[in-house]
Amino acid sequence: MKNVEKYTRQYFMPPVDCMDWAKKDHIEKAPIWCSVDLRDGNQALIVPMSLEQKLEFFKLLVRIGFKEIEVGFPAASETEYLFLRTLIEKNMIPDDVTIQVLTQAREHIIRKTFEALQGVKKAVVHVYNSTSVAQREQVFKKSKEEILKIAVDGAELLKKLTEESDGNYSFEYSPESFTGTEMEYALEVCNAVLDVWQPTPDHKVIINLPSTVEHSMPHVYASQVEYMSKNLKYRDNVIVSLHPHNDRGCGISDAEMGILAGADRIEGTLFGNGERTGNVDIVTLAMNMYSQGIDPELDFSDMPKISAEYEEYTGMHIDMRSPYSGALVFAAFSGSHQDAIAKGMKIWDEHQHTGKWTVPYLPLDPKDIGREYEADVIRINSQSGKGGIGYILEQNFGLNLPAKMREAMGYATKDVSDHMHKELKPSEIFEIFKKKFEGVTTPFQVTEAHFKQHNGIIAEVTVLQNGVEKKAIASGNGRLDAVSNALKKQFRLDYTLQTYQEHALEKSSSSKAIAYVGINDKDGKDFWGAGVNQDIIVASIDALVTAINNMLNEEAAE
Amino acid sequence: MKNVEKYTRQYFMPPVDCMDWAKKDHIEKAPIWCSVDLRDGNQALIVPMSLEQKLEFFKLLVRIGFKEIEVGFPAASETEYLFLRTLIEKNMIPDDVTIQVLTQAREHIIRKTFEALQGVKKAVVHVYNSTSVAQREQVFKKSKEEILKIAVDGAELLKKLTEESDGNYSFEYSPESFTGTEMEYALEVCNAVLDVWQPTPDHKVIINLPSTVEHSMPHVYASQVEYMSKNLKYRDNVIVSLHPHNDRGCGISDAEMGILAGADRIEGTLFGNGERTGNVDIVTLAMNMYSQGIDPELDFSDMPKISAEYEEYTGMHIDMRSPYSGALVFAAFSGSHQDAIAKGMKIWDEHQHTGKWTVPYLPLDPKDIGREYEADVIRINSQSGKGGIGYILEQNFGLNLPAKMREAMGYATKDVSDHMHKELKPSEIFEIFKKKFEGVTTPFQVTEAHFKQHNGIIAEVTVLQNGVEKKAIASGNGRLDAVSNALKKQFRLDYTLQTYQEHALEKSSSSKAIAYVGINDKDGKDFWGAGVNQDIIVASIDALVTAINNMLNEEAAE
Repeated sequence: MKNVEKYTRQYFMPPVDCMDWAKKDHIEKAPIWCSVDLRDGNQALIVPMSLEQKLEFFKLLVRIGFKEIEVGFPAASETEYLFLRTLIEKNMIPDDVTIQVLTQAREHIIRKTFEALQGVKKAVVHVYNSTSVAQREQVFKKSKEEILKIAVDGAELLKKLTEESDGNYSFEYSPESFTGTEMEYALEVCNAVLDVWQPTPDHKVIINLPSTVEHSMPHVYASQVEYMSKNLKYRDNVIVSLHPHNDRGCGISDAEMGILAGADRIEGTLFGNGERTGNVDIVTLAMNMYSQGIDPELDFSDMPKISAEYEEYTGMHIDMRSPYSGALVFAAFSGSHQDAIAKGMKIWDEHQHTGKWTVPYLPLDPKDIGREYEADVIRINSQSGKGGIGYILEQNFGLNLPAKMREAMGYATKDVSDHMHKELKPSEIFEIFKKKFEGVTTPFQVTEAHFKQHNGIIAEVTVLQNGVEKKAIASGNGRLDAVSNALKKQFRLDYTLQTYQEHALEKSSSSKAIAYVGINDKDGKDFWGAGVNQDIIVASIDALVTAINNMLNEEAAE
Repeated sequence: MKNVEKYTRQYFMPPVDCMDWAKKDHIEKAPIWCSVDLRDGNQALIVPMSLEQKLEFFKLLVRIGFKEIEVGFPAASETEYLFLRTLIEKNMIPDDVTIQVLTQAREHIIRKTFEALQGVKKAVVHVYNSTSVAQREQVFKKSKEEILKIAVDGAELLKKLTEESDGNYSFEYSPESFTGTEMEYALEVCNAVLDVWQPTPDHKVIINLPSTVEHSMPHVYASQVEYMSKNLKYRDNVIVSLHPHNDRGCGISDAEMGILAGADRIEGTLFGNGERTGNVDIVTLAMNMYSQGIDPELDFSDMPKISAEYEEYTGMHIDMRSPYSGALVFAAFSGSHQDAIAKGMKIWDEHQHTGKWTVPYLPLDPKDIGREYEADVIRINSQSGKGGIGYILEQNFGLNLPAKMREAMGYATKDVSDHMHKELKPSEIFEIFKKKFEGVTTPFQVTEAHFKQHNGIIAEVTVLQNGVEKKAIASGNGRLDAVSNALKKQFRLDYTLQTYQEHALEKSSSSKAIAYVGINDKDGKDFWGAGVNQDIIVASIDALVTAINNMLNEEAAE
């Protein structure tokens, strides 16, 4: 691809190997979560949220269980300032929630930030400046020493203003564009800030390591995080926080591997909203833990509601394939997947939902996040097969078709979907079933049948053949067998009665039963019929006659 | 979160540590790419593609540069069969492209697959069966030995049918649900298949390791891949292929780390289409390499066109934050980001686009994939600042405002966006500029000015004050200074002339110039005006008068 020579790797490796994290294969406990939806998320919207929308969003975050929420950059705009003041003055911040405000390391901005915080019970003041090579050279045109001084001056002003105030403030520092910074230098800057703040066990501070723009593979980021985590001063009193972005589509891995590498805290957003490709998606991070049996300490058990609120406030749309939240992420259209899911679900039901969840193709039980099997999982189009279609008929209409009939129904349904070029709803699938296997009344229709017990059963049957009434009589070793023999004899039919099954229609309000009959024609090909009636004999005769009609109609068509 | 105890880790670690891959920090060359858009991608669509759409999609894939394309599961449906036959019979497969077909390891399906291939020049026949614990126990209810036999029988039939045919077929085997399989067992099955196929340098075979459902962190998958890659028999004649899904949002990392771990080939789709959360997104994988200076050997230089075609054929929508392709992924709304981008772009222009691309906040040059700076990058809403707004005025209208005036224009624009609650288009920003800094004609308007050279310059000015004509006269050390002095004297105005700049309006077809004037009022507050005219004197007087009017109007409003 042209112009490729224009690009290069823009990240910096730690000076020593930092791969201890890779010895662990999973995360063992939830990190401290910090939502930056109202800041990074909001600033990335085409239309930022209004004050009212922000207040609703804040309530949503509290409800989900966030204990740290960055509420904005109050010195940056009137709306952000007003939002913070409203939260404080209307007393909307629960006692167990700490708000966080962002400020550049510039004096007048820091001062305005402290003004905005007046009256808050506690807050994290998050100060940042950019430390990467690209920013130092292109944007600030300053030396390493000068950039370090900006950080230290900011840290000192935070400390001073806090001492002058009666606020209960804690501090966070971000070397912005951390991943594009030489690691030794990033460490030097962070340690200089820590020397100013002198964290203690009672006054821990947060050092946040953003992948402002994602430039490297996630294991590189993890090694950078491990290097910092191992070499930060006052480490026991430092909360190492990560703030991954997603430019290379690896934000989730950045966060997860970063946690293995020593991070204690994650800044991210719901559904990965945020600048450009977004911040790391906290929903996916939390549910990834959950699906491995680790409590994320956030509650997404009503994902559809959370999703709807998010979409309403932000005006963004959650992608259909967004992990855990997207419309299609539990959907199985493919026949083999549907079959496996149906079998797995059956076992799960048989075990009465005890033991561990291992249903194939479903990374978690959709019900645990408020999704429905019926609407969200088995979905039928031309790619679908007998397993899924049988499952739909069973779950929605209480029909438990014989295995081979399921196959015939599968082909019939795929065919309709393939030709109509659309997904089929359960009701449409039921219509196909009725039309193909219940409603076929030509050439034959049985209008009456009488039985006598005499060396087995004798059946006297009244038949309409294309509307013309005829009588048929024969014996058999059961009622259906006798009717079948009568029809065979009278109309010279050549088939074998192969399958007979019946069950009550539990889903129906009446006490009807359904019978399924399969016959083989002279070439061994199978044909099917079903019948529904309160009288199981009538049901079974209807099923037989439909199967015969299907056979004759196919022969006639050939 | 409730029910968390129901979940557990479902993957299997290799029996020995396999972390050599982590010593590498980047990918050095493009893998073999195989598109599975027409198979996995298609089967995951609510409405699968029609024959015509598939043919167009196939042409798109060829145009992008795919040399291996899985075209379907020809034994599964009429449409898939017909599609394959059309490609073959209409001779639509270029000589350097190999098509691939998928089949389960079941005899009648394999036979039908070979029928469908009749007449093709070459093809990969891809056979699979499921090997995971969950599938063995729940779906197939078979022992390890029985499952292995399915694979071996399938492999033998492929070999036999190929020997009987005159087709140039090569083979691929997938232990489906690989990541949920015990690693030693997955290896045993793959090696048994390889023993049947006996690959040689001239007849290599593909062993494909799918993360059918993503259950683990990507470094776990990479270690599984490394284990297989190190222990597969005939390794030199085996192409190790990966087929990652994205249930945990880590498909990209799976693929990238898997390549470091020894994989030679990646199966994926455009924009991550595919079942549930999708297959791995080849666009992101390719562009991740590109953005580090590695040629992906696929061409995405016209991303908007490729995106539009993809959306048309599949009916899917590319998410606004999808890496490299989403509508918002180059957008910068935030003031500080815009400022950094504007500065970075200026340096890039000054260096005449030589050297390496390091513009802050832009992981690559949008132009290299057919995106526009104007429409896609600097976008203005209430979060934006002087840098971005100045950049828009410069790029779109040729206005190069003085630094301090940029700030005033920034506040004016944010204010409008904040109150109108919308994003502003460049034309709307230009309107704000004109209204605020060009069009202010009350209380003062200068209708005429005459100059005499006498101990400096003497200006005689005709002024309309709220429509009433007055004369003013004074001297100064330049024309503008003289006019300013005349106005000050006549109307008792108190301000200092602080800034004067002018430049030709190159973007305009006429030869007009623009002048910018900044004044400070008695409290040191700055006010601005601009004037446009072919005569630079008139332009500068208009600018001055607007600045004065702005000052007086604000004083009147207070």
